[in-house]
Amino acid sequence: MIAILKHGTTPQQTAHLVAWLKHQNLDVHISEGAEVTVLGLIGDTSRVDMELLSSLEIVESVKRVSEPFKQANRKFHPKDTIIQVGDARIGGGYFAMIAGPCSVESEEQIIEVARAVKESGANILRGGAFKPRTSPYAFQGMKDAGIKLLLEAKREVGLPIVTEIMNISTLDLFADVDVIQVGARNMQNFDLLKELGKTNKPILLKRGLANTLQELLMSAEYIMSEGNENVILCERGIRTFETATRNTLDLSAVSVLHELSHLPVVVDPSHATGKARLVPPMACAAAAAGADGIMVEVHNNPSCALCDGAQSLTPPQFDELCHRVRKIQEALQ
Amino acid sequence: MIAILKHGTTPQQTAHLVAWLKHQNLDVHISEGAEVTVLGLIGDTSRVDMELLSSLEIVESVKRVSEPFKQANRKFHPKDTIIQVGDARIGGGYFAMIAGPCSVESEEQIIEVARAVKESGANILRGGAFKPRTSPYAFQGMKDAGIKLLLEAKREVGLPIVTEIMNISTLDLFADVDVIQVGARNMQNFDLLKELGKTNKPILLKRGLANTLQELLMSAEYIMSEGNENVILCERGIRTFETATRNTLDLSAVSVLHELSHLPVVVDPSHATGKARLVPPMACAAAAAGADGIMVEVHNNPSCALCDGAQSLTPPQFDELCHRVRKIQEALQ
Amino acid sequence: MIAILKHGTTPQQTAHLVAWLKHQNLDVHISEGAEVTVLGLIGDTSRVDMELLSSLEIVESVKRVSEPFKQANRKFHPKDTIIQVGDARIGGGYFAMIAGPCSVESEEQIIEVARAVKESGANILRGGAFKPRTSPYAFQGMKDAGIKLLLEAKREVGLPIVTEIMNISTLDLFADVDVIQVGARNMQNFDLLKELGKTNKPILLKRGLANTLQELLMSAEYIMSEGNENVILCERGIRTFETATRNTLDLSAVSVLHELSHLPVVVDPSHATGKARLVPPMACAAAAAGADGIMVEVHNNPSCALCDGAQSLTPPQFDELCHRVRKIQEALQ
Amino acid sequence: MIAILKHGTTPQQTAHLVAWLKHQNLDVHISEGAEVTVLGLIGDTSRVDMELLSSLEIVESVKRVSEPFKQANRKFHPKDTIIQVGDARIGGGYFAMIAGPCSVESEEQIIEVARAVKESGANILRGGAFKPRTSPYAFQGMKDAGIKLLLEAKREVGLPIVTEIMNISTLDLFADVDVIQVGARNMQNFDLLKELGKTNKPILLKRGLANTLQELLMSAEYIMSEGNENVILCERGIRTFETATRNTLDLSAVSVLHELSHLPVVVDPSHATGKARLVPPMACAAAAAGADGIMVEVHNNPSCALCDGAQSLTPPQFDELCHRVRKIQEALQ
Repeated sequence: MIAILKHGTTPQQTAHLVAWLKHQNLDVHISEGAEVTVLGLIGDTSRVDMELLSSLEIVESVKRVSEPFKQANRKFHPKDTIIQVGDARIGGGYFAMIAGPCSVESEEQIIEVARAVKESGANILRGGAFKPRTSPYAFQGMKDAGIKLLLEAKREVGLPIVTEIMNISTLDLFADVDVIQVGARNMQNFDLLKELGKTNKPILLKRGLANTLQELLMSAEYIMSEGNENVILCERGIRTFETATRNTLDLSAVSVLHELSHLPVVVDPSHATGKARLVPPMACAAAAAGADGIMVEVHNNPSCALCDGAQSLTPPQFDELCHRVRKIQEALQ
Repeated sequence: MIAILKHGTTPQQTAHLVAWLKHQNLDVHISEGAEVTVLGLIGDTSRVDMELLSSLEIVESVKRVSEPFKQANRKFHPKDTIIQVGDARIGGGYFAMIAGPCSVESEEQIIEVARAVKESGANILRGGAFKPRTSPYAFQGMKDAGIKLLLEAKREVGLPIVTEIMNISTLDLFADVDVIQVGARNMQNFDLLKELGKTNKPILLKRGLANTLQELLMSAEYIMSEGNENVILCERGIRTFETATRNTLDLSAVSVLHELSHLPVVVDPSHATGKARLVPPMACAAAAAGADGIMVEVHNNPSCALCDGAQSLTPPQFDELCHRVRKIQEALQ
Repeated sequence: MIAILKHGTTPQQTAHLVAWLKHQNLDVHISEGAEVTVLGLIGDTSRVDMELLSSLEIVESVKRVSEPFKQANRKFHPKDTIIQVGDARIGGGYFAMIAGPCSVESEEQIIEVARAVKESGANILRGGAFKPRTSPYAFQGMKDAGIKLLLEAKREVGLPIVTEIMNISTLDLFADVDVIQVGARNMQNFDLLKELGKTNKPILLKRGLANTLQELLMSAEYIMSEGNENVILCERGIRTFETATRNTLDLSAVSVLHELSHLPVVVDPSHATGKARLVPPMACAAAAAGADGIMVEVHNNPSCALCDGAQSLTPPQFDELCHRVRKIQEALQ
Repeated sequence: MIAILKHGTTPQQTAHLVAWLKHQNLDVHISEGAEVTVLGLIGDTSRVDMELLSSLEIVESVKRVSEPFKQANRKFHPKDTIIQVGDARIGGGYFAMIAGPCSVESEEQIIEVARAVKESGANILRGGAFKPRTSPYAFQGMKDAGIKLLLEAKREVGLPIVTEIMNISTLDLFADVDVIQVGARNMQNFDLLKELGKTNKPILLKRGLANTLQELLMSAEYIMSEGNENVILCERGIRTFETATRNTLDLSAVSVLHELSHLPVVVDPSHATGKARLVPPMACAAAAAGADGIMVEVHNNPSCALCDGAQSLTPPQFDELCHRVRKIQEALQ
C-alpha cells in the first residue's frame, strides 16, 4: 500500500503518521521526492482501514498495490478452483448449465421442468423457494414447501439443486440443498455471509446491483475467511441509466474476475435482461467470454399461454440454447 | 393500473388475459383504440405482479396509475407524520439534529462527544456499535459493548440514541435504544424489515446505494405493513460515475419523498460526501431543501491529530454548522 | 401515443387538451375509466413534444406506443440494411472486421499495420487523424496529414478506411474516406449529424457514454432524415460506477438494436474495456451476441517495447482473435 | 505524477521507461521499495498522456499529484474570478440570478418575461434560440430570429442576455450576446470550445450528463488555454439510475469545483429536475450550498393554461423564489 502525502506536510506530521502506522504492525518505507513524499506500507495491509487513511488531512491519496482480498486472490492460489456439485463440476474448464423455474410452484411443475432441462443438458436445477420481492404485497415464494418440492425433484430426476437463502434462521431447511444462493440484495449482508462461511456448502454469490467487482470479491472473502472456500461468483447485471433492459449485463466481469480470482464465474442472463428473447444471445456471449457456467430460467406451463413472454425460456428454447452454447464451447477449444 | 396491449393482439388473447386478471379480483375496463387496446385494472393493484404482467407476449407496457405503496403514501395520509424520539420530534415542521461519532470507541469518547453535540443543539445522539464493513478484516465495531456505552451516554447526557442493527438476532440488545437504524446495504433485507415492523421502535431507514426512491418507499412499506408506522427515511447519497465525492447526494429526494409520502426525511451528508469539508455546505443545502433533519458525524479526539481530516466534524465545526442551519431555517419560515 | 390524465381532471381541462392536440393534426381517442382517463393519440406522433406533454399539470404520464424514430425503425423497414464499404459489406449476415491503430503516427506505421490486419482478415482499416482528447494539452492527432497517410495506406494495401470527423468544417478532407466516424462525444452534436446526413457516405455512429439506445437511434434518425441512410451503429461501452474497466460494454445493446432497427451494429471492445487483454474475450462475446462487426485497435511498433500493454493488440494477437471469431461465427450458423 | 511499477519489473524495463519519460522533458525520481518501485515525475505533467502510461505492461497504476488543468486551477490563481456581465457580476461573493423562458417564442413573450424577471431581481436574461433536441422532428428553436428577439428584449428591458451556441459557424450572430452558453451535449465538443476560447465573451459551460467534475474543468481549460478566461461553470444534473427526476442534481459539485477552481459556479435546477415544483427547493439548496448563481426557467403565458405544469416557473413563483433565495443569502453572511 502506498500513501502519498500532501505537499507541505511537516516532518513532525510525517513522523506522527509513521508512528501510527508502525503501531499497526506495518513497516514503512519513506521516499521523499521533490513534490511529494510517498510512504510504502509493508506487511499485512489487508487490515489497514484505507478509508480512514485517505481521509487524513496530510494524505493526498492512498493506493493499494496488493488487493484487499487474500483467500479469493489468484495471486495466492494460481490454479482455478473447481467446485463439485453432485455429479457436476464448475470452474477450471468445467462448464455448469444451471436451469429451472424462477419460482417453485407445484410438484408437477418442478419435476416436469427438471426432467426437461436435464434432458437438454442442464447439470444443476435452480428454483426459488424464498423470493426477495420489492413489494411486501407480492408473492414471497412457497418457502419451506418450495424447498421440499425441490428436494423431491432432486430425488426424482437426479439433478443437484441450487436455491436462495434470505435469512440465516432458515439454514436448517437447506441441509440437503446442494448449492446455497445469496441474492444480489444480500451480497453485503455480512452477517449472513459469515454464517454461510461456517458451513461447507458451495455458495453461489450474486453480484449486487451497484457493487463493484472488488466488492464482490470482498464478500466472497467474508465467506472464505470463515473457512468455506466453495464460492461461485455470479454476474447478473448492474444498475445503469439504460432502461431498454432491466439491468446492464457486464460481461467483462467474467475476464476481470478470472484475472483477480481463482473462483468460478457464472452468468445469469435471465435476471440481467428481464426479457426471454435476449437470454439466448447473452448466454452465448457469456460462453464466448469464458464464463464457467450460465444460469437461466426455464418454465414449462403449456396450460398458461399467458406466460409465454416472461423472462423464462420454454424447454424447446432452452434445448436449442444448450445446443448453441455447446457449439461455441467447441469452437473455443 | 393501465396495461397497453400490442398491436395485433387477437380477441382470444385479450379475453384470456382479462379472465386471468379478473381471477385476481380485479375489475378490467377495456378500451379499444385504433392503434392499441388499453386495459384499465381497477381494485387492489398493489398486489399485481407488474413485472410478470409486463413480460407477457401480448403486453406492450404496463403503467401504474396509483403507487404500489399504501401505508407510506401521502394520498391516504395527507398529514405529515411526526415521530417522537425521547424529547425530540421529527417531521411536520420539527427538525432533528442527529450527531455523534461514526463508531463508539470508548466511554470517555462517546460521553464527551454527546455532551458537546448536545450543547451545540443536537437532539439525538448517533454512534455505531455494529459496523457493516466491506472487508472482513476491517474493524467491525464494539458490538454489544458499544451499545452499552451508548446507553451510558444516553443516561449521562440525556439524549435519545440511534444506532444500526445488522442482524435480527441481536434485537434484544436494542431494547433501550430509541431509534433503530437500517443501513443502506440492508435496505432490501426484507426479512429484517419485517421483523422490525413487529416492534414499535422508530426505524431510521437509509436509502440503498443503487435504490430508487420508489424502492425506498416500498422498503418502508415492508416495515409499516407489519404494524410499525414509525419510519424515518434517510437520503445518504447514491452511487454514480462521479468519483470526486464518495457518493452523489441526491437532495431532490427530499422534495420527491415529501410529495409521495407523509414520512419524515433526514439527510446524511457525512456518508454521502465522505469529506468533512463538504459536510457543512451540504447540510445547509439539505436544510434549505426542506429536510426534516440532518445526521452528521462528529468526533472529539484531541489526542489523535491524525483524525483531523476524516469525514467527521470537530465539535467546534459542528457548533458553527448548527448555528448556520438554524439561520437558514429562520430564513425559510 | 397514450396520455394518461390525472384523477380529478375536469371535463373542461380534458377538452382544452384535446383541442390543443387536434390542432397538432392528431386524432384523439378518449377512453374514460373509473380511475383515469386515457387519451390515445393517432397520427404522426413522432412530432409530438413528449416532454412538454408529460409536464402538463393534468397529465399523469405519457407513453409512446410507436417509437419516435421512423427511418431507423425496423417496423417500417423489416429487412436488415446491408452497407457496402469498398469490397466489404456490413449487416444482414455480412460481418466486418475493422482494425488499425488508435492514432495514425507515420507512413511506415499505418502501412505496416494495414498490411498485417488485412492478412489476418480485416476488411476495413481504422486509424485516428483527428483525436478528441479530454485535455487540451494532449496529442490531438496528425489531422490533415493523418488523413493523407490513411489514404496512402488505402491505395497501397487496398482496404477501405474509416476515420473520425470532429468538425464539419473539415468535411472536404474526407472526400476519399470510405466511412466517416462520429465519436461518442459527438453523438448528440446535432448540427454535425445533419450535415453528414447531406452526404452519401456511410457513417459509423458511436453511442455516447451516457446515452440510451433510443437516443442513439434518434441520432441515427438525424442523419437519415437528411437523406443519408447509410448508418452503422456502434456500441463502445457506457459510463457506470464500475472502475475495473474504462467503461462497461453493454452487449445486450446488439440484440436490442437489432430488434428496434434494421441498421447494422458493430462493437468496439478496445475503447470499452481500455485493456488489451480484455479485448479478445469481449470481441468473441460480441460475435456470439450477433454483432455485425467488431472494431479493434491494432498497432505494430516493435521498436517501442513500452507500448506492449496498451489497449491495442499486436498483429499476432489480432490474427489469433480473427481465427477465434471466425470459429464462433461458424458455430452459430 | 506518481507511477507505481509492478512487482517483478526488471531494472532494464525501468531504465527504458525512465529514458522515455526524460525524453518528454520530465525529471524522474526513482524510489525502490520492498514491494514496488515508485517513479515520481517532475515537470509539466499536464502534457503526459496518463492513459497511455497506465496501460504500459510494467505500470501498476499512475496517480496525478497535481491536477491536469492549470488555468482553471485555484492553486495557481487563489482568488475567486469575478465575471462582469453587463451590470451584473458573478463570483467572488456576487450572485447571479439568471432567468427567462426555455425557448424564445415571440417578441411579446420574451419582453414580457424579461420585464417580469427583472422586476423580481433577475440580473441576466436567458432564452433559447438554437435548441438541441433529441429528435430531428422536434422544434429546433427560432434560431437567428430568436437571437434578434433576445437582443430586442435586451434593449427594451436593459438586462444582459445568455443564449446557447450549437455550431461555431453561427458565431457572428452572437456579437451582441453577453454570455454564450455551451450546452451539456457540447461540453466535449472540443473544436467548439477552442473557437470560443478565441473570443473574449463570457462562456457559460454546462456540465455534460455523464461527465466528471474534472472533465468539466478540462473543458474549461480548452477555452482558457486559447486566451479566454471568462468561464462560468454550470451544474445541471447528471444521469443516474433514478427516474423520479429527469437528472440527479449534484449539489456537492458546487463545493468541489470551488475547491479545485477559481471560476464561478452556477446551478440550473430547472433542467436537472424537469419539474417546476422541484425548482424552488433545489434553487434554495443551491444558494445554501454556496453557488454563485442560479439559472431558472420562467415563462409567462396566461392564455395557455396547458403549459402550467412545465418545468418553468410562472413570474409570481419566480418572484417568491427570489425572495427566499435572498433571505438564505442573508442568513449565510
